Amino acid sequence: MTPSPGPERLERVGESPLATTRILELRNVRFRSSRRGTENDYTVIAAPDWVNVIALTADGRLVLVRQFRFGIDDFSLEIPGGVIEPGEDPVEAGQRELREETGFAGGPVHLLGSVHPNPAIQNNRCHLVLVENAELRGATEWDPEEDIEVTTVQADEVLAWARSGRITHSLVVCGLFMFEQWRAGRGCARSV
Amino acid sequence: MTPSPGPERLERVGESPLATTRILELRNVRFRSSRRGTENDYTVIAAPDWVNVIALTADGRLVLVRQFRFGIDDFSLEIPGGVIEPGEDPVEAGQRELREETGFAGGPVHLLGSVHPNPAIQNNRCHLVLVENAELRGATEWDPEEDIEVTTVQADEVLAWARSGRITHSLVVCGLFMFEQWRAGRGCARSV
Repeated sequence: MTPSPGPERLERVGESPLATTRILELRNVRFRSSRRGTENDYTVIAAPDWVNVIALTADGRLVLVRQFRFGIDDFSLEIPGGVIEPGEDPVEAGQRELREETGFAGGPVHLLGSVHPNPAIQNNRCHLVLVENAELRGATEWDPEEDIEVTTVQADEVLAWARSGRITHSLVVCGLFMFEQWRAGRGCARSV
Repeated sequence: MTPSPGPERLERVGESPLATTRILELRNVRFRSSRRGTENDYTVIAAPDWVNVIALTADGRLVLVRQFRFGIDDFSLEIPGGVIEPGEDPVEAGQRELREETGFAGGPVHLLGSVHPNPAIQNNRCHLVLVENAELRGATEWDPEEDIEVTTVQADEVLAWARSGRITHSLVVCGLFMFEQWRAGRGCARSV
């Protein structure tokens, strides 16, 4: 339907930081189009990769966390997750975030898949990790400002909540999408 | 597992803009904790609501768009979508974006659901719209910088691509998650 040769791969020719915060850098990134003979600046959010964790208990429940979220100025029901440290393996990061936020741990652990939170404007990925046989094994280790309600809910109910709008975090929905395929026996990206 | 009374609803007490671009505003937003007696600043990305569109043809194919994406500095295979104009209905915005990006239109049209792209740091929502009986009805109306390859692919194949990592945009994955439930007859948020 589109005349060849299809969309052009633009050339990244420069960038300038607009603002830097604890969690991200906002940049103007300049791209050149050879076909059009133009250069334009685009907003890009640069951030470390993130990880979200589906923690499945032996009796088929998922570990959920409920927190006040500053972006939406309201509470949000989610799965555990956070920022991957420099050089940290995504699967190990998932286990760490699960342990710190909830005190749960388990295994085996799988990488269910990875998504781009927003390819249009954001450079990072979010990895989705499954921890089987999750159980409460220790105390939480919250950052000073963290204030988290931890619960476990039957997996089918959690999936229904994602479908009904009680769970709204897009990256949590992605994790549940991949969990559902894994549960149906359609495999996953990597097991450890 | 958590001692009552659960996480505190913090009070938003101020904000200051850090940077403003065409598509978003980066803010420091200050929240007060009465329990802890502290105030802290948090990074918030303020943006208009977005819409993503599942356009289903009469023969069970979905309309896909492939574009060069500045965030990841690479191509991305997605469903059509974009920014909702001030005061615009999400479902109408979805039909507009579909028409402008691909030339496709159809009906009936449903709101499949809505997600928060990232409640932790971002204030907006992304609405997921389904257009049934989509067909090519006119010319595309691209912005001067848009350069889009339009294809249609069997819905089951698109779902498989989301599961295998060929489609990585988290908001597209959310749309496919909700489309799959709709197709299975489990309903959706609103029909028009």
